[in-house]
Amino acid sequence: MRVTVLAGGVGAARFLDGLVRVLPPERVTVVGNVADDLDLLGLHVSPDLDTVLYTLAGVVEPERGWGRAGDTAHALGVVSQLGGPAWFYLSDRDLGLHLARSERLRAGEPLSAITLSLCTAFGVQVRLLPATDDRVRTVVSTPAGELDFQTYFVRRRHRDEVLAVRYEGATTAQPAPGVLDALAAADVVIVAPSNPFLSVDPILAVSGVRDAIAARSGPTVAVSPIVGGRAVKGPADRLLRTLAGESSPRAVAAHYDGLITHMLIDEADRELLPAIRALGLRAAAAPTLMPDAAARTRVAQAALELAGS
Amino acid sequence: MRVTVLAGGVGAARFLDGLVRVLPPERVTVVGNVADDLDLLGLHVSPDLDTVLYTLAGVVEPERGWGRAGDTAHALGVVSQLGGPAWFYLSDRDLGLHLARSERLRAGEPLSAITLSLCTAFGVQVRLLPATDDRVRTVVSTPAGELDFQTYFVRRRHRDEVLAVRYEGATTAQPAPGVLDALAAADVVIVAPSNPFLSVDPILAVSGVRDAIAARSGPTVAVSPIVGGRAVKGPADRLLRTLAGESSPRAVAAHYDGLITHMLIDEADRELLPAIRALGLRAAAAPTLMPDAAARTRVAQAALELAGS
Repeated sequence: MRVTVLAGGVGAARFLDGLVRVLPPERVTVVGNVADDLDLLGLHVSPDLDTVLYTLAGVVEPERGWGRAGDTAHALGVVSQLGGPAWFYLSDRDLGLHLARSERLRAGEPLSAITLSLCTAFGVQVRLLPATDDRVRTVVSTPAGELDFQTYFVRRRHRDEVLAVRYEGATTAQPAPGVLDALAAADVVIVAPSNPFLSVDPILAVSGVRDAIAARSGPTVAVSPIVGGRAVKGPADRLLRTLAGESSPRAVAAHYDGLITHMLIDEADRELLPAIRALGLRAAAAPTLMPDAAARTRVAQAALELAGS
Repeated sequence: MRVTVLAGGVGAARFLDGLVRVLPPERVTVVGNVADDLDLLGLHVSPDLDTVLYTLAGVVEPERGWGRAGDTAHALGVVSQLGGPAWFYLSDRDLGLHLARSERLRAGEPLSAITLSLCTAFGVQVRLLPATDDRVRTVVSTPAGELDFQTYFVRRRHRDEVLAVRYEGATTAQPAPGVLDALAAADVVIVAPSNPFLSVDPILAVSGVRDAIAARSGPTVAVSPIVGGRAVKGPADRLLRTLAGESSPRAVAAHYDGLITHMLIDEADRELLPAIRALGLRAAAAPTLMPDAAARTRVAQAALELAGS
């Protein structure tokens, strides 16, 4: 069985950590969000790709879910001491990756090729593809004006109300090599439990990606990032309330209307199963919190079982 | 008394560490070599300026004489693991400085302004000026062809025979703000014990610098980097043999002909005093090795005493 997963950051990475305990990792392709990539201190940083990479490599900081475990941040300490931009956390080993990747990007190598070789270097057997090698950037409209994604998310700690989201460059961006094939050839496509507006939509917005999923005959399963009305992590609940009228797995299902065939929601939301099925989807409820490997494995198993139903 | 010092790396930094124990540091201006600056991993690195900065800030690695003491190199470890260029040692805190400086250079700030603010941030009261804000690069001719300075010096460990040296960009480079004034206004100019060809000449090659020194009426003292025929550090002895026919303080004195008025040599070379005086210079011999603060202070004191003779 071949599975392709649309993935944002921490939630997706934890789900994938479970999936590779259920499936041989070489059967898994990940299409990762790159619209929250940023240029910082002359470095190209790809937070979502790196969260997936570090998690699958077993070097992620486990509590936070992103960044490298047990790392120092001596370089950033000096940047800060010298008055440089230190609002985006970069630990020293993480910085090493950004330095090496940025060097190769400057030399003209595409992000997708670099990402595959990073996977090899980190012993990650999953095929991790950026949605695109082109530049796509999430821009968030707030009462304070338009903000680039990381200014909104990290610098201002996603406190601003989000009035609208757009994905600069997406319509002209081409899917990275392998993305469309991985969607067409997959037995199952899974939309990971990621923020629909900030992680998944910017993947879908890349030209051809949404159509490639909609054209599939096989199952496309979404795992709800909303549990009991709240986001497990981040501002997905607030965005759903503002942009979709309600924060619930049903709102997530409706958001993916025409795209997904199956929806896995948390047990806490079991009473929403009929409403989701009323949208024409197959749906199931299971525990979806993923604190440890066992829980992650069960969520991945539940998603695959639902896909096969 | 105001003193201006032409400075390369480790030898100059150690001499300056003594000088600021003899004179109030705010009386001292350092004109630093930037022709061995390099662009590495997208960063602008200024090895000689940083050696002076770190030494005067008291954070230099004391045995080696360059780089930061007690630092980690986790970022470079990852760069190396990922196949990136890791031949030039960059520790994590050092990297922080390069990141912050490179960011400001990209924003259009001149190196001289950045360097002064780095001095402030590190509590260094000496006025440290790059010889120029423009790009000058030492290029070394060897039997293996022309090499950029750091490829010759670090990557190939200065093993190649040096047939000639040129300073790309020097003739059109303008002295950084303050450089010519500091040379004109100094009561004493000191040429630190640095490599004549690789550290001092690229400063002198910047348009107007040599003339500003030659035009002085006050003393200009060189401290010999050669002791008993050998360089205290680095390849100065080999370059002198190839390019000046002999490795000795006399060859150094002759190399600076028309530029210096006084020469301080090591006690081990005392028998060369008459030959140096025959060049029309005042000269003295003293212990010039600088393992510790006391020794550095004595060398600085000896240079100032000679200047006053």
